Amino acid sequence: MDRERLESQVRFLLEIDRLKQVLRQNTLLDASRPENDAEHSWHLAVMVILLAEYAREPGLDLLRVVKMALLHDVVEIDAGDTFVYDTVGMAGKREREVPAADRIFNLLPADLASEFRAVWDEFEAQETPEARFAAALDRFQPLLGNYHTGGGGWRTHGITADRIRARNRIIERGAPELWDYARELIEDAVRRGYVQEGPGDRVAE
Amino acid sequence: MDRERLESQVRFLLEIDRLKQVLRQNTLLDASRPENDAEHSWHLAVMVILLAEYAREPGLDLLRVVKMALLHDVVEIDAGDTFVYDTVGMAGKREREVPAADRIFNLLPADLASEFRAVWDEFEAQETPEARFAAALDRFQPLLGNYHTGGGGWRTHGITADRIRARNRIIERGAPELWDYARELIEDAVRRGYVQEGPGDRVAE
Repeated sequence: MDRERLESQVRFLLEIDRLKQVLRQNTLLDASRPENDAEHSWHLAVMVILLAEYAREPGLDLLRVVKMALLHDVVEIDAGDTFVYDTVGMAGKREREVPAADRIFNLLPADLASEFRAVWDEFEAQETPEARFAAALDRFQPLLGNYHTGGGGWRTHGITADRIRARNRIIERGAPELWDYARELIEDAVRRGYVQEGPGDRVAE
Repeated sequence: MDRERLESQVRFLLEIDRLKQVLRQNTLLDASRPENDAEHSWHLAVMVILLAEYAREPGLDLLRVVKMALLHDVVEIDAGDTFVYDTVGMAGKREREVPAADRIFNLLPADLASEFRAVWDEFEAQETPEARFAAALDRFQPLLGNYHTGGGGWRTHGITADRIRARNRIIERGAPELWDYARELIEDAVRRGYVQEGPGDRVAE
């Protein structure tokens, strides 16, 4: 056993424990408290294996998609969670996350640092079918949660349906059938009064 | 899209949200609160991809191991977490968990119910290299946490080193090098006074 190597791996494992304390804008389904990034990442990884049949492109490397689900948010240990409807926050997201990725993945031995970083970079670049499917689920997970908590973070922050559609239609690129389903949930959220329609959305959609 | 099928899949996803509220005996690394099963499952899945090189047998189906990590605890939504040092609780564990598996996995469409149930059964049976590696990590994760929080759940419950060794040596079957490392942590936990040695352990080990 290469003791130094294992120590580095353990150091990374201890460091990412902090992801359990990065809070998101959505809550658990019973609305008792905010969800954290570790919980979200777990739920997302289960969705990868449960909903694989809805990926736009067949024959995905599912282990690769699961790795993205597990690792895509670890940069938020340093960079914090950015609410997707926070336009100012989203603008600086990349600038906060790249140094975070540099620090956190480099806790690992060089070969693993570069392997894990490549997983994160691939997710961010959105150029492979695996990355697009992971991103689709990453949007679909909180959408389900917001809908099933009577509007959740959408309602708290007064996000209108047009913005919800604009922000989530990335689902279509990775999982078109899930986007069809998601759109119905958004329609229903309007009907139920969870969210307001908002200006100009029908055209924009 | 088969609407009924997708609705079943979503129902399962909503149901397992409750795993985020099943609390374990160990805490987060900063000791601020108990860890929950969803967080533990995420951490474990990361360990699968990070520590694969320590599996006793080479060429494991890592996606299979990740699936076990993600799903092994969902039965605890109904059955509750059983503290591994609670002898009475452990005796009834299987009787509580099988009906839980019956209920929860059967929320899914039949093909997925049987696929996910097979993953859980395989983990429980401990007959494949994949299941043994998953179980090794499932013990190694809280052991790391307990050690790095000055004894954690061991200390709270007065668990002695002999019992810790007996309960964790299952790590050896799946990941012998991690067991070597774990034993050193247990030794050190005794030296630092986190835990007491306990009776008859040296022989038992």
